[in-house]
Amino acid sequence: MRTDSTRTGSTRIEDVDLRHHGDAEVGSGLVDFAVNVRPGTPPEWLAERLRASVTDLAAYPDPRPARRAVARRHGRAVEEVLLTSGAAEAFVLLARVLRPRRAAIVHPQFTEPEAALRAAGHAVERVILGKDFTLDPAAVPRDADLVVVGNPTNPTSVLHPAETITALARPGRTVVVDEAFMDCVPGEPETLAGTLPPGVVVIRSLTKTWGLAGLRAGYVLAEPALIERLAEAQPLWAVSTPALVAMQACCEPSALAEAEQWAAHLAVERDRLAGELSARGLYVVPRARASFLCLNVPDALGVRALLRERGYAVRRGDTFPGLGPDWLRVAARDRATNDALLEALGELGI
Amino acid sequence: MRTDSTRTGSTRIEDVDLRHHGDAEVGSGLVDFAVNVRPGTPPEWLAERLRASVTDLAAYPDPRPARRAVARRHGRAVEEVLLTSGAAEAFVLLARVLRPRRAAIVHPQFTEPEAALRAAGHAVERVILGKDFTLDPAAVPRDADLVVVGNPTNPTSVLHPAETITALARPGRTVVVDEAFMDCVPGEPETLAGTLPPGVVVIRSLTKTWGLAGLRAGYVLAEPALIERLAEAQPLWAVSTPALVAMQACCEPSALAEAEQWAAHLAVERDRLAGELSARGLYVVPRARASFLCLNVPDALGVRALLRERGYAVRRGDTFPGLGPDWLRVAARDRATNDALLEALGELGI
Repeated sequence: MRTDSTRTGSTRIEDVDLRHHGDAEVGSGLVDFAVNVRPGTPPEWLAERLRASVTDLAAYPDPRPARRAVARRHGRAVEEVLLTSGAAEAFVLLARVLRPRRAAIVHPQFTEPEAALRAAGHAVERVILGKDFTLDPAAVPRDADLVVVGNPTNPTSVLHPAETITALARPGRTVVVDEAFMDCVPGEPETLAGTLPPGVVVIRSLTKTWGLAGLRAGYVLAEPALIERLAEAQPLWAVSTPALVAMQACCEPSALAEAEQWAAHLAVERDRLAGELSARGLYVVPRARASFLCLNVPDALGVRALLRERGYAVRRGDTFPGLGPDWLRVAARDRATNDALLEALGELGI
Repeated sequence: MRTDSTRTGSTRIEDVDLRHHGDAEVGSGLVDFAVNVRPGTPPEWLAERLRASVTDLAAYPDPRPARRAVARRHGRAVEEVLLTSGAAEAFVLLARVLRPRRAAIVHPQFTEPEAALRAAGHAVERVILGKDFTLDPAAVPRDADLVVVGNPTNPTSVLHPAETITALARPGRTVVVDEAFMDCVPGEPETLAGTLPPGVVVIRSLTKTWGLAGLRAGYVLAEPALIERLAEAQPLWAVSTPALVAMQACCEPSALAEAEQWAAHLAVERDRLAGELSARGLYVVPRARASFLCLNVPDALGVRALLRERGYAVRRGDTFPGLGPDWLRVAARDRATNDALLEALGELGI
């Protein structure tokens, strides 16, 4: 592991474009292995509720019922919950409200937390994990008063143990855990949403499991004093009525059961895809637990270009700090779609 | 006119609750004269498009088509347009990006611009207009480098001439014009959206005319350099897909024609209601041009309470700096609903 000091201010820094995301990789007609949203979503029962909410749009949004539902779902007090316009807004609010003297971001990771911190004028240090991307809390600078880590991590798919994350917490330090993909993990054994140790902030999203990337629905769990400061920095009526309807609906027991069932199914297909890719001699980051795989492929950008010609969009890895030009992120789809990708790779001699 | 210096920092200051809005006044079953959203909205043709957009929610929002549509609607370059999650987000972004040495807010006015500036740590001075609420540019401190004004103004309903607003502009000063209610004015003769003089920032909203308060859809028009800075401060994917669909739809010629027709109809009913109220000896702020009236009524809070008992919600005026306990804001509804309110007032001896 190593720590990089990089300059502050711009979100577009020399090494990588932090504002590049999978949605920019999906072109017309391409089979999507670049964006990690659950296919076939939103499900019809949820779509129907969203359509029904259109009749209520003349009224301003009332976040209270959804906030109560989210609190109940995680066994938290409502004062520990802030609903946000997607996880992306949560990162921006944290970057505006926190005043870190030394902020450390564990990379590779979703790049928006770093981009938001830089846009807010904060210096950011990168803690770059080694090739299996496991986390050693000792790698984080001892005096870092803000640490941001993903769990499970985008793009590596690595799930850190809850005790490893908890070991990062200490007086005077805020530990932000991006759990946007936690609902990919059956039973969520490593989530900190239910315990919320002192100083830990958990960020969640409805985007991936429920196919609501276009709706902007996420939330923050944190101690009430911080939630209050974040709320103060948030625009009035920040979360739309349809997003609130979705949040409330997706906290219902039947929805949680559906998500759990999907996560179990996903695990089977993901692990099978990982096995097939490993069998071809590719390095797949081990113990993947999210809805995607992280692969080391020589000349990954070349492979990506050839896959696009064949109709498949995979996510370049080189815009993630700590990866590089030999990395790809590949979503796990259903078996037939995964097999089609494997066949296309085979045509490329992989 | 007078200028008040008030302390910075908190958005809940001694004199009034800046975070009180009409939506908090509408209770179950009350006839709504408190919120200024056009009744019967969103119209069915727009609701249908919003319902159809639910099938696209798995994809991340793509703001480009809506941005182009808004630019075209106002004859602007796309680089002069930033789409926002309602006008409320626009005020927060401006408060974060601008670094005013001396910020002046023309009151009475929608309170969110001041609340957002205070939440961002800026000191704010209030320029309080006199009883007819017309604007004299000379009342604004000469060295104010940020001036915020509403046009037409919430809650007074006064429409300032474009040349008066333009006279506020000068090198080194940003003039923010909240035009959230401009589409209530047939032909929009005083809008600055089409000319956008140097230093002028125009904020618009789809909330009122299209009944989309729950959707969060607004935009900023400004010079490209400022738009770029605002975009940098904005969360990624800030505007939801349904909001983008609505923005694009409401820029179509048929939608603009519908809005224009409604504005003309509204003017008739509003002016009739104003005439009836004046005939009863109430002071109605003259030359109302928005979708509401501002009234001086002795013991307005008492009148408001009695109206609530009779099933009518009107907006208290005392939370607007520059108004006070003798003021109410009353939305103009259709004739039958307005008449019912007049009758209820009559029962109170008004």
